[in-house]
Amino acid sequence: MDPVAAACRARAEAIYNRGMRRWELTVALDKGRPQPLFLQLATILADDIRRGRLTPGEPLPGSRELAARLGASRNTVIAAYDELVAEGLVRARQGGGTFVAEREARLDVATGSGGALGYSLGSPSPSFVLPPRAPQAGALSLVAEPDARLFPARALARAFRNALSPRILARLAHSDPRGHPTLRAGLSAMLSRTRGFALSPDFVLVTRGIVQGIDFAARALVRPGEVVAIEALGYPPAWNALRLAGARLVPVPLDSGGLDVGALEALASREQVRAVLVTPHHQFPTSAVMSPARRSRLAALAARHRFVILEDDDDHEFHYEGKPLLPIAAAAGFANAIYIGSLANLLPPGISAGFVLAPPAVLERFVGLRLASAARGDAAVERAIAELFEDGELVRHARRVRRIYASRRDALVAALERYVQGALRFSTPDGGMAIWARVDEAVDVDAWVSAGESEGVLFAPSHRFAFAGRAPPFLRLGFTSLDESELTEAARRMGRALGRLREPKRAARR
Amino acid sequence: MDPVAAACRARAEAIYNRGMRRWELTVALDKGRPQPLFLQLATILADDIRRGRLTPGEPLPGSRELAARLGASRNTVIAAYDELVAEGLVRARQGGGTFVAEREARLDVATGSGGALGYSLGSPSPSFVLPPRAPQAGALSLVAEPDARLFPARALARAFRNALSPRILARLAHSDPRGHPTLRAGLSAMLSRTRGFALSPDFVLVTRGIVQGIDFAARALVRPGEVVAIEALGYPPAWNALRLAGARLVPVPLDSGGLDVGALEALASREQVRAVLVTPHHQFPTSAVMSPARRSRLAALAARHRFVILEDDDDHEFHYEGKPLLPIAAAAGFANAIYIGSLANLLPPGISAGFVLAPPAVLERFVGLRLASAARGDAAVERAIAELFEDGELVRHARRVRRIYASRRDALVAALERYVQGALRFSTPDGGMAIWARVDEAVDVDAWVSAGESEGVLFAPSHRFAFAGRAPPFLRLGFTSLDESELTEAARRMGRALGRLREPKRAARR
Repeated sequence: MDPVAAACRARAEAIYNRGMRRWELTVALDKGRPQPLFLQLATILADDIRRGRLTPGEPLPGSRELAARLGASRNTVIAAYDELVAEGLVRARQGGGTFVAEREARLDVATGSGGALGYSLGSPSPSFVLPPRAPQAGALSLVAEPDARLFPARALARAFRNALSPRILARLAHSDPRGHPTLRAGLSAMLSRTRGFALSPDFVLVTRGIVQGIDFAARALVRPGEVVAIEALGYPPAWNALRLAGARLVPVPLDSGGLDVGALEALASREQVRAVLVTPHHQFPTSAVMSPARRSRLAALAARHRFVILEDDDDHEFHYEGKPLLPIAAAAGFANAIYIGSLANLLPPGISAGFVLAPPAVLERFVGLRLASAARGDAAVERAIAELFEDGELVRHARRVRRIYASRRDALVAALERYVQGALRFSTPDGGMAIWARVDEAVDVDAWVSAGESEGVLFAPSHRFAFAGRAPPFLRLGFTSLDESELTEAARRMGRALGRLREPKRAARR
Repeated sequence: MDPVAAACRARAEAIYNRGMRRWELTVALDKGRPQPLFLQLATILADDIRRGRLTPGEPLPGSRELAARLGASRNTVIAAYDELVAEGLVRARQGGGTFVAEREARLDVATGSGGALGYSLGSPSPSFVLPPRAPQAGALSLVAEPDARLFPARALARAFRNALSPRILARLAHSDPRGHPTLRAGLSAMLSRTRGFALSPDFVLVTRGIVQGIDFAARALVRPGEVVAIEALGYPPAWNALRLAGARLVPVPLDSGGLDVGALEALASREQVRAVLVTPHHQFPTSAVMSPARRSRLAALAARHRFVILEDDDDHEFHYEGKPLLPIAAAAGFANAIYIGSLANLLPPGISAGFVLAPPAVLERFVGLRLASAARGDAAVERAIAELFEDGELVRHARRVRRIYASRRDALVAALERYVQGALRFSTPDGGMAIWARVDEAVDVDAWVSAGESEGVLFAPSHRFAFAGRAPPFLRLGFTSLDESELTEAARRMGRALGRLREPKRAARR
């Protein structure tokens, strides 16, 4: 275990122990039972000690205090404690106080309690992908995440404080089931302005992020066994949400212009496609941009075959070059498209809000799902984020990070050219958060990734994003979470890792 | 519309309009198309005006500014604006500036845009119950909600500020998919201490509230068509979550000791029961307490018929009288029980966290569902709540409100005896957040509820909680959200409303 994780664990244990002391001990005696009260009490406490609810060294309550709490006589408690001392489970210390004896090893409740289940767990649920572990201290991660350091955290803290003011709190209990009205107004303004929609807030449902938007759409629209087409390289948690709804996933190949619409057309003419999940703006993970012509062709195909386009436009705001492009749902309308986005890339990790845009008749289907996911508990977060819209913080932040990420992209391009020249082939992406680079065939991709880990740089090989588990040799190299000097250092370490791979070969040649 | 709602709406509109101005206008020109650029631009802007993306009176960007942004010549923009003036869509004002013309009525996009769907919506989803609307200003609501005014909001705001510190933020990205470890440690300590569990944090999964716990259990364990037994009077949003998983709900009668376990036994011997959703501690909505003997009988029944008890223990902490009682999952273990709770009653509205306790093998099934609901976005809220555990705020708050709610219960009992004597029969509940009172047969319950609304007091009749839609005449009268003088006033208004009902009768008798 790395030192940070160990420290966290120790801290959690300390909190656990402190918390244990703070909460009052609950003991239930039954005066109606034939067993004497002192024996009942001794039995309960012995059981608590064996089960680990009372831990070695822990003080038991004073006899007077416990007697008062139980409505029993003090002698009952003293007799119970004597019984426990006799059993060796507790000991009375000189100077007063009764403590759980040290010699009784604490049961490992994780395996000890519970034991066999008394009901069937049923068929296994679909497998899912766990989020990445934290990188080791000092490691540089080329995962494409927003840089939390750039976020105006103070403004958000202030917005939270305001959302928690008694006047606002009292109203949050009755927030709209589609999401906080102020946030929906802010979102529809932002999306109308920057992405070419003509939206009323009635088209906006607040979610907790991209994946929940996909989850809602899948559960509301897809029946078990129906076909949902996906991009052959994509985001595994999104596939997980589709699978949980019972969708049969069929991968469609990609090219440098994103989803191969011709291949989708062939699929749609073979069998009934219910939906396609697509990332046209910056394809995930390849960062490919789908042209307006191909977007229209996809919209026309959906209209012809009556399927729905789930347009996942996660990092729309990070477009650096060329003409702005309209989302499919903005250009072709909502007749065959549901637009799924999030603010995750504008917010720090651990805070999230997303949105789904669709006609009210469709969103109505999502409201029940949103309520079942306990959406009312989101109102304070939504209110706080809405304030960041209102006072312009989020707009300023978006403009600022777009500029910064564009420079970082250029810095990573330059550093890769300097340190790993020849091993990678790529073009500079017009937008998004990562470079998608083809690895030279002479290089073992997985060996490079492992050697990188030893050198303190983390990056992802293409097969992690491949529906089939296999993919041509590419790397996804995110440039948003590290600053320019860190990116340069990361590329230098990639180069060193590459050198390690080559050395043994050279050595063997001699 | 009431004045508060109107003010909120006006505010949302103002934010929308301000937001509209702030975000940059995105216009996509295509230099490859045969149409001249000025005509393309005019067409796009005309369309934007007709669709309501640009609103009457709104200024268009200056021609120099827009030209620079589009990479076009200024003459192109001027020609486009002239075209729009000619169409009557915009007008140039003396003194400079071009504005969207007022006479073009804004389209009601909620119905105008989108139009017919190009895909089938499928069979209608199960109906759901919307959360209650905010009461009119000045009305007193006897809904059983926690009193937000008592919450240590300043401590929570401080905890949020700490959670948003850069050092902590950076770690939140890699939080455990079962919930923030510190919160899970705090929860397991609290539950071990106050509810008789012997828990390691491995048995704890963080949710966003009771309903999400039920949603996870239903989706992970219940296959479509399987029987889930429910209490004949209960919480409709919980039923909604079960229905969304495809459960066939079968109501089981209640008596003054909660769920009638004999009736459940009869059901279980007739057909395969997969699960029972039960609120043994303070039955919702009747506040009935299930005896330890009946709890064991239920646990034994579950073991014999291999079904799972979904033990919903929402307001456990609010028990005022008699011996503490162990939850079924604490007394009988987790072999046939999943324990579902929340902190909602200890937190203000708009903030939420809940928990599910079950053996790790069961919780594993929930992790995929939690990830699909975008759980990673909860880490900051979880971290903030964990701090309230850590510094003892939540413990102090729980003790404090328990004492206050006990007095409020007594105050409401006294006020009801004073103002509506004869019309209600009830016993003082040992715990929970509401009195469940039988209405005298001579009184028309729904008429009383409506008359109460006119008098400025809101309370719920039994049929709102009845699975069958009908129920014997009872009222649920919550005593937690109002202070003692407000409760007295609420009872006085109930009495006045009752008087209104009786007056016409008296008048008729004369």
